[in-house]
Amino acid sequence: AMDGAPPPTSPTGLSAYVAVSQLLGLTLLATTGAWLGRYRGGVAWHSPLQFNAHPLCMVLGMVFLQGDALLVYRVFRHEAKRSTKALHALLHGLALVIALVGIIAVFESHRTKGIPDMYSLHSWCGMAAFVLYLLQWLLGCGFFLFPGASFSLRGWYKPQHIFFGIALLILSITSCLLGITEMLLFKISDSYSHFVPEGILANTLGVLLVAFGLVVSYVLTREEWKRPPLAEEMALSMDFKTLTEGESPGGGS
Amino acid sequence: AMDGAPPPTSPTGLSAYVAVSQLLGLTLLATTGAWLGRYRGGVAWHSPLQFNAHPLCMVLGMVFLQGDALLVYRVFRHEAKRSTKALHALLHGLALVIALVGIIAVFESHRTKGIPDMYSLHSWCGMAAFVLYLLQWLLGCGFFLFPGASFSLRGWYKPQHIFFGIALLILSITSCLLGITEMLLFKISDSYSHFVPEGILANTLGVLLVAFGLVVSYVLTREEWKRPPLAEEMALSMDFKTLTEGESPGGGS
Repeated sequence: AMDGAPPPTSPTGLSAYVAVSQLLGLTLLATTGAWLGRYRGGVAWHSPLQFNAHPLCMVLGMVFLQGDALLVYRVFRHEAKRSTKALHALLHGLALVIALVGIIAVFESHRTKGIPDMYSLHSWCGMAAFVLYLLQWLLGCGFFLFPGASFSLRGWYKPQHIFFGIALLILSITSCLLGITEMLLFKISDSYSHFVPEGILANTLGVLLVAFGLVVSYVLTREEWKRPPLAEEMALSMDFKTLTEGESPGGGS
Repeated sequence: AMDGAPPPTSPTGLSAYVAVSQLLGLTLLATTGAWLGRYRGGVAWHSPLQFNAHPLCMVLGMVFLQGDALLVYRVFRHEAKRSTKALHALLHGLALVIALVGIIAVFESHRTKGIPDMYSLHSWCGMAAFVLYLLQWLLGCGFFLFPGASFSLRGWYKPQHIFFGIALLILSITSCLLGITEMLLFKISDSYSHFVPEGILANTLGVLLVAFGLVVSYVLTREEWKRPPLAEEMALSMDFKTLTEGESPGGGS
């Protein structure tokens, strides 16, 4: 059963791509901060600047932390699955809390200014991303963290969880790009077409968001970089399989 | 060598998902046409309506046709690979030509109206999607259609081609959503927040674009639905491999 299990070193390239993703992630946050700080008066909660907490929280929660939560199975590919799983759930949980703060910021800011909620394509996509992300997190906890779900049920759900996980990161990034476009057309509609620095900076933030999504998706989908099952897991999985389903261990992918 | 090759029937579910994707694709086109026809005065080339050719061509070329070109390997999974490949390249070529017409429409319309080009995040993402799509098409033709590229070179490039193919469809869809948001904020910025029918219709078009991207990506990435190598290909590939690289046939994924 152990034949073909790779030795516990990271594959060539993976570390470099992960490093680039983290550099991009930090640059994302810095660029968002620079935009809000330099051109939009900064961020504060009980003030007319409350709105500005929205983009900051969404980029931090729904992009950077969500992306990093997806990467833990590649970064910690030789740690025990149990702890990696806990970290995965924890990072997503933190992302959800920060995103919720960002959503409250925009709803409260709208109420203060008398602006209607949920009319724009940005709000539709963003809210769909958040609600489905929460649902995905709950389903993930139910299927993978708590005991009870059978091996065959987990085996059926796992590819769906992975597909929708990447899809939700992409939908979140798309929502950010829509938000950037909305904010620029609300705030600098007259000067945007004259290539003013704020427009260029915010466009660059959009490009960085796309780059982050590309690098993370590439790391996640590259076949050779998928997490190999550890020896202890394979033995455990076999015991369970034999116990719960009477399947013969070993075969299959 | 033939052991484990599935019988030539489509896997359960695949046909249903493909049917849904085509229904979504046609609904996309109809919704775009309805928006432009009902609220934006229709489409015409030598007229102030020239701009409207842009969204129509981009949705048709960069989304519907690009998406369908990706699906041919799933839909025609038991046809000869040669003809499927030709259809794949042909559909992408058609998509590129239609997208080029759509790009000319917006540049000419900008020139007529004295609007600057390429300042918005929409234009940056859209132009990046188009240029990289053209590059991907040229690389695809060079590697896979013309003889000359060795088997090992093709084997190295294929996963990159597939990853960037899906990434470009997603970037194209994201660009469309940015375009919808821009157009609504340019044309109905005063009434958009009052949930006017045009806003709802255009938002719905955005949601349909996301749904199309989701269904197509799901079909493309689902492991069990990947195209099985045909008997003739396996024999041919073995002959070539033995001939060109002296590899032993059979083993591998």
